[in-house]
Amino acid sequence: MSKQTKPFMDKVVALCRRRGFIFQSSEIYGGINGFWDYGPLGVELKRNIKGAWWEDNVLRREDIVGLDSSIIMNPKVWEASGHVGGFSDPMVTCKSCKRHFRADQLGEGYDAAAPANQCPECKGELTEARQFNLMFKTFVGAMEDSSSVAYLRPETAQGIFANFQNVLDSTRLKPPFGIAQIGKSFRNEVNPRNFTFRSREFEQMEIEFFCHPNDAAAWYQSWRDTRYQWYVNHGLKSERLTLRDHADDELAHYAKGCADVEYEFPFGVSELEGIANRADYDLKQHQEHSGKALQYFDDQTRERYLPYVIEPSGGVDRAMLAFLCEAYSEDEVPDDKGTGQARVVMRFHPRLAPFKVAVFPLIKKAGMPEAARAIHEKCIKAGIASFYDEKGAIGRRYRRQDEAGTPFCVTIDGQSIEDQTVTIRDRDSLQQERIAMDGICDFVRDKIEITN
Amino acid sequence: MSKQTKPFMDKVVALCRRRGFIFQSSEIYGGINGFWDYGPLGVELKRNIKGAWWEDNVLRREDIVGLDSSIIMNPKVWEASGHVGGFSDPMVTCKSCKRHFRADQLGEGYDAAAPANQCPECKGELTEARQFNLMFKTFVGAMEDSSSVAYLRPETAQGIFANFQNVLDSTRLKPPFGIAQIGKSFRNEVNPRNFTFRSREFEQMEIEFFCHPNDAAAWYQSWRDTRYQWYVNHGLKSERLTLRDHADDELAHYAKGCADVEYEFPFGVSELEGIANRADYDLKQHQEHSGKALQYFDDQTRERYLPYVIEPSGGVDRAMLAFLCEAYSEDEVPDDKGTGQARVVMRFHPRLAPFKVAVFPLIKKAGMPEAARAIHEKCIKAGIASFYDEKGAIGRRYRRQDEAGTPFCVTIDGQSIEDQTVTIRDRDSLQQERIAMDGICDFVRDKIEITN
Repeated sequence: MSKQTKPFMDKVVALCRRRGFIFQSSEIYGGINGFWDYGPLGVELKRNIKGAWWEDNVLRREDIVGLDSSIIMNPKVWEASGHVGGFSDPMVTCKSCKRHFRADQLGEGYDAAAPANQCPECKGELTEARQFNLMFKTFVGAMEDSSSVAYLRPETAQGIFANFQNVLDSTRLKPPFGIAQIGKSFRNEVNPRNFTFRSREFEQMEIEFFCHPNDAAAWYQSWRDTRYQWYVNHGLKSERLTLRDHADDELAHYAKGCADVEYEFPFGVSELEGIANRADYDLKQHQEHSGKALQYFDDQTRERYLPYVIEPSGGVDRAMLAFLCEAYSEDEVPDDKGTGQARVVMRFHPRLAPFKVAVFPLIKKAGMPEAARAIHEKCIKAGIASFYDEKGAIGRRYRRQDEAGTPFCVTIDGQSIEDQTVTIRDRDSLQQERIAMDGICDFVRDKIEITN
Repeated sequence: MSKQTKPFMDKVVALCRRRGFIFQSSEIYGGINGFWDYGPLGVELKRNIKGAWWEDNVLRREDIVGLDSSIIMNPKVWEASGHVGGFSDPMVTCKSCKRHFRADQLGEGYDAAAPANQCPECKGELTEARQFNLMFKTFVGAMEDSSSVAYLRPETAQGIFANFQNVLDSTRLKPPFGIAQIGKSFRNEVNPRNFTFRSREFEQMEIEFFCHPNDAAAWYQSWRDTRYQWYVNHGLKSERLTLRDHADDELAHYAKGCADVEYEFPFGVSELEGIANRADYDLKQHQEHSGKALQYFDDQTRERYLPYVIEPSGGVDRAMLAFLCEAYSEDEVPDDKGTGQARVVMRFHPRLAPFKVAVFPLIKKAGMPEAARAIHEKCIKAGIASFYDEKGAIGRRYRRQDEAGTPFCVTIDGQSIEDQTVTIRDRDSLQQERIAMDGICDFVRDKIEITN
């Protein structure tokens, strides 16, 4: 089945709702446009994506540390970053039906220089385009006036820049080093669309990597390749994944280079992550606006300089949506009588799957539930997310785990009680092996491991 | 040293800043009142607190699943919950100095019935009290008018109630079962105070546990005890921890029982978590306001009923602050010459410590760094957060880990290269044991494990 069709996307959305990956926010009140909730399976998948990113980029690296800055910051941060002045989209409104559109997305029918344009929905007359700032505004403190205006951050990056000096002072890091953060950001999109791809509340995973200006080009290349490979390693097939270098005329005025990791979604090729060489733009802006020196003094070379920044900036929800689309498959498996039965299977990489292993007693007696529970608990203690299920026919239990994307199902049967072995079923190959109970954790841990 | 003094709190705050646990948000711009950032060590401590809670309450339980709902929801949610109408504090303002105060916190000098009260700061005249809603307001979509008003959630709980039916439909759960969520909430506090204890942006960990009305009293008792014990198990000494049952006249009109887990902070005894029997209040409100039936039909007893809810609702930042205060200690350790040297040591429970183990080569040659890095990487692969350090004298490396709260330091020396053993130093007892390299992960994992 092709993954590049609208019906395919509808199937993914339906599975997400049915199996508890993603729900519409506030659904019982008619929803709210651009906001989504993650259900029981979705929250585990998202935790695993964030956990893998954190492990690879923070815990396993000696040159990167983590940060968790607040969503609401002093508004001067957004003046310095340019977001108060310039973070806006051109918006037009239909004078008849009152719908709003982004002028830059109206396509060929729209001519910004024309005196009047037609609404694509009702053919009414469109207003002229005006700049619409995408930051959500609120008021902090007891008064609702201009002195108390604050914004929900539209990106996590500025929380990192604002803490550059604090991190230097509280660690023994020196350039090249990075600060990594995962957290919510908010953008008041004119037209949220494509399921969770473009929403108004979303989660980012961003790194700001600070280095000497002379080393920035090499670090940019390295991050560009590392981040592309990360998505490949976690199961996005490279024929659907591209690393697109921006043309010079696409670059922000300060940027020295930018590349997007793009995925071919059913609704089109779209960006998962951008990797940019932002030079010293951000630290310079904050240095000027805050009046605080942010230069780094290298006590070995006696050089004082403003580090350059390489920024790999990815979307958690977008990565998750790509993994969901990539994982969704339909095939046939033989039932007890050898007849082919259609199944839906989510082929997540084992490291990302909500549960790594499901543990079943074949039947609810003869010591099997007790033995199964003991294995389930041992897995959890070893940090391996496990799901225990004793309800219903074994075939239906397998099928439910296929839809949840669980890579391994362990079944405890009569023989298990006698010789301490279990069967372990592979979600993709459908092969069942009999292995020693003692070896389950190692077996599963080997499969979770990423090997380049 | 007593932990119940202001100087003690100042020491904790200073250590948090110096070692990168907690920074003031937007500090380079003069900060912003009521918002805090978590630095490199703080973010790991917070991740571990949330991870332990999730593991104990979601992964290890067959009757609870997770959820991650959006911060901005349809505003009808907050009408149904009562927050639009009633989530407010009485506020007074000084006519002279313009400062704002919560009327209910002005103490004995304030008399609500008096025609005029004096400002506690400048002795100016205070206004009459008016109700100040604590929800942050924003506008979603292109228009800033009443039709587009939305709120930042003041609690994560309502996202759970709004998804009650979605979770039932997408899982095979039946009461008694729970839905757990960790996430940011926002309250526009009139007077944020006590470091991160009362801030305007904070993180909650909440469970809504749904059960038959007849079972609610027993589940309430069970959750009340379980949640108190969780804090004890993670290192809060019970002489500073209390479980206080609310008097009947403290209860909300719908509540059948409520107890607070309270901790004796240096600034006073304050709430870490509340456990409440909320009866069917929340589901009933949402059923009425949404027009959607939220009753559960038990197909075995043929009974249709609105489940009762037991809600254990804890603050992540508050728990973290309690763990920080509890952990902070000063003692003396003998140096190479046997002279006592003052040290600061953070005695975190090993399960919560930012790093479980630090790995040091004794010197930077003779194969020691390579062997140490191999151990460090093996720990990380096994899911044990490890910190690698080869910089400076070994005594200073130990001291830095004491301040970070790392429970075990592993040193690779000359003998290690010959016989594959290492020394492992205990943060609290200062004892050093020599153990086999192969046994490090098991050794550390045993200590992390919670035993009731």
